[in-house]
Amino acid sequence: MGDALTALKSRLADVTSLSQINALLEWDLQTQMPPGGAEARARHMSVQSKLVHEMFTADETGRLIEAASAEVSGADYDSDDASLLRVARRDYERERKVPADLVAEVTRTTTLAHDIWAKARANNDFKSFMPSLQRIIELKIRVAECYGYTDHIYDALLDTYEPGLKTADVTAMFAGLRTELVPLVRAIGERVDAVDDSVLHQDFDPERQRQFAELVIRRFGYDFSRGRQDRAVHPFATNFSRNDVRITTRFDPRWLNPALFGTLHEAGHGMYEQGIGEELEGNILAGGTSLGVHESQSRLWENLIGRSRGFWTFFFPILQTYFPDQLGRVDLETFYRAINRVKPSFIRVEADEATYNLHIMMRFELEVDLLAGQLKVKDLPDAWNARSQTYLGIVPPTDTLGVLQDVHWSSGLIGYFPTYSIGNLLSAQLFEKAVEQNPTIPEEIRRGEFATLLHWLRENIHKHGRKYEPPELIRRATGEPLQSRSYMRYLKSKYGEIYGV
Amino acid sequence: MGDALTALKSRLADVTSLSQINALLEWDLQTQMPPGGAEARARHMSVQSKLVHEMFTADETGRLIEAASAEVSGADYDSDDASLLRVARRDYERERKVPADLVAEVTRTTTLAHDIWAKARANNDFKSFMPSLQRIIELKIRVAECYGYTDHIYDALLDTYEPGLKTADVTAMFAGLRTELVPLVRAIGERVDAVDDSVLHQDFDPERQRQFAELVIRRFGYDFSRGRQDRAVHPFATNFSRNDVRITTRFDPRWLNPALFGTLHEAGHGMYEQGIGEELEGNILAGGTSLGVHESQSRLWENLIGRSRGFWTFFFPILQTYFPDQLGRVDLETFYRAINRVKPSFIRVEADEATYNLHIMMRFELEVDLLAGQLKVKDLPDAWNARSQTYLGIVPPTDTLGVLQDVHWSSGLIGYFPTYSIGNLLSAQLFEKAVEQNPTIPEEIRRGEFATLLHWLRENIHKHGRKYEPPELIRRATGEPLQSRSYMRYLKSKYGEIYGV
Repeated sequence: MGDALTALKSRLADVTSLSQINALLEWDLQTQMPPGGAEARARHMSVQSKLVHEMFTADETGRLIEAASAEVSGADYDSDDASLLRVARRDYERERKVPADLVAEVTRTTTLAHDIWAKARANNDFKSFMPSLQRIIELKIRVAECYGYTDHIYDALLDTYEPGLKTADVTAMFAGLRTELVPLVRAIGERVDAVDDSVLHQDFDPERQRQFAELVIRRFGYDFSRGRQDRAVHPFATNFSRNDVRITTRFDPRWLNPALFGTLHEAGHGMYEQGIGEELEGNILAGGTSLGVHESQSRLWENLIGRSRGFWTFFFPILQTYFPDQLGRVDLETFYRAINRVKPSFIRVEADEATYNLHIMMRFELEVDLLAGQLKVKDLPDAWNARSQTYLGIVPPTDTLGVLQDVHWSSGLIGYFPTYSIGNLLSAQLFEKAVEQNPTIPEEIRRGEFATLLHWLRENIHKHGRKYEPPELIRRATGEPLQSRSYMRYLKSKYGEIYGV
Repeated sequence: MGDALTALKSRLADVTSLSQINALLEWDLQTQMPPGGAEARARHMSVQSKLVHEMFTADETGRLIEAASAEVSGADYDSDDASLLRVARRDYERERKVPADLVAEVTRTTTLAHDIWAKARANNDFKSFMPSLQRIIELKIRVAECYGYTDHIYDALLDTYEPGLKTADVTAMFAGLRTELVPLVRAIGERVDAVDDSVLHQDFDPERQRQFAELVIRRFGYDFSRGRQDRAVHPFATNFSRNDVRITTRFDPRWLNPALFGTLHEAGHGMYEQGIGEELEGNILAGGTSLGVHESQSRLWENLIGRSRGFWTFFFPILQTYFPDQLGRVDLETFYRAINRVKPSFIRVEADEATYNLHIMMRFELEVDLLAGQLKVKDLPDAWNARSQTYLGIVPPTDTLGVLQDVHWSSGLIGYFPTYSIGNLLSAQLFEKAVEQNPTIPEEIRRGEFATLLHWLRENIHKHGRKYEPPELIRRATGEPLQSRSYMRYLKSKYGEIYGV
């Protein structure tokens, strides 16, 4: 290994360590920190972030990237060294493009905007949030201009969360969905009473909920010797190494879904990180390659597996032993239908599998129009409600239940929403391919066995870490680009049967 | 505020933050981290420590100290600014004195020595640990020479843990103790059967143990909105701010003492940190001034309060309601005597109040002789056993129970042991002064009230943080230097009564 490459790796390993430490500060903040610690923690995280940024964007990093590139110029594209250099260069050039004072201005603005948004949502008062959102859009346009783009300004922001993905790809993806999904949801909407989910709303002791969910994810393959689970108000997964991956959940003592499906979801994220190739540990290639690919893993385990009949054929009898009074006399079919109830609703985070992507589609279209100057912030509530009518067939009675519901825009997260839909679509695309190559998987799931599936995900997705950008990774794994057909096939087959549509 | 002072404060605040982050990494390692995380955590802590050291010892820090000193040259000695500069200069000059390669060599040697010591202890094989210890002594002599000293080479190491304290002070302190303590322990040793502590060895549900100890420390004044408590194999207290102070404990389901007195002990450390002046928060004056003064706080709450008859007059009836089967028929006097049982034993960490300092005295004398070249490592076991006979009246049957018992020397912690005795002596000296100035304190303790005592400690010790070195702080608080009379008065009165000696 050349001197420059050695020095670069050592520098990037330090950057990675400092940034993993920041993730621990955040995890502790969300799960352990006493209330009094907030102020000091803000100082800690700000100093630590500044250090990470300074060390990574220093001229020295650029110099080492150039020198190391010369050293490994003949290396195989797939090799760890060539990949490290590719990703280091991309990240470095990207982070150097936005001037520090613009980054600071975005941070300042969004920090203030968060409280203004929270109050506006509580008071159903969009007007009071308007100036902040206006300012955030202006700043994000400036950020996008710094990054640069070829086709569409939105590309520049999308690329932050989903490297290599273009606005045109997302537009095409949603076009494929729209024509089929809107009619499907309409048809289900007319038969919404065909499914009753009242069995899910009973008294469920949180500790027993926790035990059952833990039993499931252990069988999935979530490794507790390299991970743990805690409670958090807003569940998330994080990691400070492939060998220290932490998931969180929350419990509703009167509703089975949040902790159960939330745990399967976060375990999906967690198993991705636990499956990153050992040889990538501790450097910038360690970690999931994008938010969308990450979400494909969480959605696959939560929905494609966790809401499937095969899965519950094995696990429902076990769940009944955890809650004999509540579920002892419920049959599998009633339970299966209950956890797959579809109902158009106002709030994205409560949406079912079928309607979820319609929520995202709306937000994507509105973001694109806002960035392109084709929609003004003051007209946003009307545009929101019109699209809600078109896609979901319902109009929120208040902005609190509509345009003000999500935290994302107040935090400056524009270009982020599409990654949720990418995750959904990709989950079905990957699962279809895995089963095509391993036809025994469905039968194994009915026996509560997941090793073949997890192995396929490890080999095709997890182990590569950040070596490949999402479009390349998806093509390698499935032989084609991201598409919506698999997901639509999945939805139509499943919900066609449940709802008879 | 001058420009240089502003810049210096900002730099030192960053150093403080980075070092508080390292403390969180350590806390998480001890209390939360899954086993798989160990390797990554070692990387994280090593990078973070290196950064703290580099940022603090940079030439720029020295330049700012000089420039800021000129700006505040007229400031009052007691002012926060003058104190900050005094402590910054002391720490800076000290840390600059030891070359980086010597620091690295100490780290390397002690890291390896730890495992060698652990094996040697397990196998009762001092010889296998000898070369490591020999090397550690040599290195610590080099370190001490770098720091420099006037009277005794041991001063240079002692100063790391107890700034301002001299070997001569410790020698004088122990001389005062030795003449009275050795005969007292001998006399008690002859009446060891006068106290029966079997009531402490029963089945005590750990969760109820936890609840009771928590109730006590809440009444002491440990603030859970600015702190928490977790389990750890080796209990400790740490903090990342005066408003985020964490203590840990361990439970023995068959023995009341470890969790109960351990919790009171760690809460004493915790309340010190929670009581640091708010105006010192986030900079280098925040934090306890020395290990010895810290230990005075933990020992005061654990022993002077927590093993006193007055304390249990209030709390024993409550403890009985937690453990009615175990303690319902035990009377207060039997319990009080049980928790104050004295018995010379081989292991320091299990020693009672009366014999504890004898263990420390031995170690101090051996360390001084080793550093001064008057004792060779190969002769250490014999020297250990001889002193054990003189001070404790017993000789350990193996080196495992003798010279190999402590982790300290293998970690390079030489000059550290005396701080335990300083803590013991100082706890009595402070308590005596607090009661002299507030004669109602003993009566308040009998009512389970601690506000007057805590307030006195806050005003005289806690709030000053690191502004004053221990000798100055002790003189300000008690009007005299550290002395052993108060502690001996306390022991003789308490154990004279219990054992009739």
